[in-house]
Amino acid sequence: MNANHAIDYARYDHIRPIRWTGDALELLDQRKLPFVVEHVLCRDSDAVAEAIHALTVRGAPAIGIAAAWGVVLAARGIEADDGAAASRALAPAMARLNAARPTAVNLAWALARMRRALAGAGSDWKQALALEAQAIADEDLAANRHMGALGAGLIAPGSGVLTHCNTGSLATAGFGTALGVIRAGIAQARIARVFAGETRPWLQGARLTVWELQQDGIDATLVADSAASHLMKTGAVQWVIVGADRICANGDTANKIGTYQLAIAARHHGVKFMVVAPSSTVDMGTAHGDEIEIEQRDPGELFGVGGVRTVAEGIQAWNPVFDVTPGSLIDAIVTEKGVILNPDAGAMQAAFGG
Amino acid sequence: MNANHAIDYARYDHIRPIRWTGDALELLDQRKLPFVVEHVLCRDSDAVAEAIHALTVRGAPAIGIAAAWGVVLAARGIEADDGAAASRALAPAMARLNAARPTAVNLAWALARMRRALAGAGSDWKQALALEAQAIADEDLAANRHMGALGAGLIAPGSGVLTHCNTGSLATAGFGTALGVIRAGIAQARIARVFAGETRPWLQGARLTVWELQQDGIDATLVADSAASHLMKTGAVQWVIVGADRICANGDTANKIGTYQLAIAARHHGVKFMVVAPSSTVDMGTAHGDEIEIEQRDPGELFGVGGVRTVAEGIQAWNPVFDVTPGSLIDAIVTEKGVILNPDAGAMQAAFGG
Repeated sequence: MNANHAIDYARYDHIRPIRWTGDALELLDQRKLPFVVEHVLCRDSDAVAEAIHALTVRGAPAIGIAAAWGVVLAARGIEADDGAAASRALAPAMARLNAARPTAVNLAWALARMRRALAGAGSDWKQALALEAQAIADEDLAANRHMGALGAGLIAPGSGVLTHCNTGSLATAGFGTALGVIRAGIAQARIARVFAGETRPWLQGARLTVWELQQDGIDATLVADSAASHLMKTGAVQWVIVGADRICANGDTANKIGTYQLAIAARHHGVKFMVVAPSSTVDMGTAHGDEIEIEQRDPGELFGVGGVRTVAEGIQAWNPVFDVTPGSLIDAIVTEKGVILNPDAGAMQAAFGG
Repeated sequence: MNANHAIDYARYDHIRPIRWTGDALELLDQRKLPFVVEHVLCRDSDAVAEAIHALTVRGAPAIGIAAAWGVVLAARGIEADDGAAASRALAPAMARLNAARPTAVNLAWALARMRRALAGAGSDWKQALALEAQAIADEDLAANRHMGALGAGLIAPGSGVLTHCNTGSLATAGFGTALGVIRAGIAQARIARVFAGETRPWLQGARLTVWELQQDGIDATLVADSAASHLMKTGAVQWVIVGADRICANGDTANKIGTYQLAIAARHHGVKFMVVAPSSTVDMGTAHGDEIEIEQRDPGELFGVGGVRTVAEGIQAWNPVFDVTPGSLIDAIVTEKGVILNPDAGAMQAAFGG
């Protein structure tokens, strides 16, 4: 038992989905994993916006970081005397980055930070942007490590956990949000079993999460999304641990489609439910989950896998890629600022109210 | 509104997964649908057992019917003076058929009927077997039509329904169990919207159900299994309607993995939950769902789709293909003998005891 040992973070440091080369943004192409490890080089901000839209880079924190570097790239072609002038010139590019995906608030949050960095900058505004983008990435990694320790602290030794989608190094600057808690929980011998849901339609769990954990030497067992309740009934799982794309002022949480269903099943079985996300995911300006725009993606994502069509022609599909889990079904929200148990509007206001 | 009109059953009669040619059993190969419509000809009982095991034919009623014809094929090579002698000689072949899949009780039920047919037969025992196999198929079709009317009668006009797996003509002698109710409900203008879950890992919903309904000119909307709760939250669905592989003496029901999760979600949203299955699916000898053997299939079924691997090598998976929905989460069990509301041991005993 090594529950109090320090975590060797270097062990988890070999996957980086986003790398700034100094003059371009290199993205690990997450559409091709796990069999093809290929990078895409974005040399301008529209290429970054397209990469975000096309899921080349995905995961709420990661798309925020990528968008920040996208602003740095957009700045290249712009001559401006100070940050305020640059901000006006950059507005169209920033709007295109912001529109790349609608649900995760981290995207808008990162762009707002870049805008604030500009506001105070003089002629050195390009350097200010680059420093801010780097800070966003660095702070994300630090937040993940801190959240890992906080979240793992909630888990009793010997527990089994189930996660959904991919919330790991691939979705962040490194270590991961929910997967960061899982990494920390395993390092501390609190977590004995890890299950990962496939996460249809994009199979982030099947393609990314089990592969990412395998790189760390962590065994995870893949399950069909629809097997989660049966798994909980066996007693193998004590916590469901997921990330978030937006957390409202009352604790309602938008996350990958299927998260809500897991929360209902967890409550039914007395399994605990944890949301792990940096405070940049908290949107105190959205009072309630019903106000969140849920991204609908191409129904074609349900018509096949890996280029193999499995569904007859002429079929309709409904493909919302997020859902909202009410705060009342969440036992703990973990951010780098601390743990909120049984989140509701009061607890959220106490933690994040201005 | 044509709620009281008769249903034109001929309209639903063009898919038959099982056809007895007179000297062989022709099975529609359900592994290849919807793009390849190909038949497999089984000339002996071991070929039928292999076809059941390999999912060439699937669906609890359909595998019972196929097994009955398998016994007819096994009888070919046997010389016996009467049914009792034939029964002894057929025992090994019948054991192999029975072992082809463990969870659906219809398989054992059909073999028991064949055994009883033998028990009373003299030198004409081969003819008795053929007549019994045909009777099993004919009664299944009649039961489905009757259940369709009974189940549809529970549904208020204008309702939306969600189904899981495939319970249609492909899974039965024709018309279907849960899909029979859906067909009847549409014909009577009670059902206005049909949603079908993909049903990972084998994608029976995506590959078979929406295709089968399309053959009838019925629009169904495909959803990811994990989107069911989000769908229910929108108010689009009033009933979840599923089939069954085994119904216990207390109403606990084994069905395709994911059914249990849908039942939990339905109860959470006040959506009603209906199980539709012929009385051959009822197993009064199994008191409780915990006594049902849940078939585990190859973890490889989770590693890809249509020959395309999506999961890294060396990953573990857990692949139970059924789960058990407690009777307490079921609002109605529909068999050809009638409707049981709020099933429990008492209601089941009243309907099927004795």
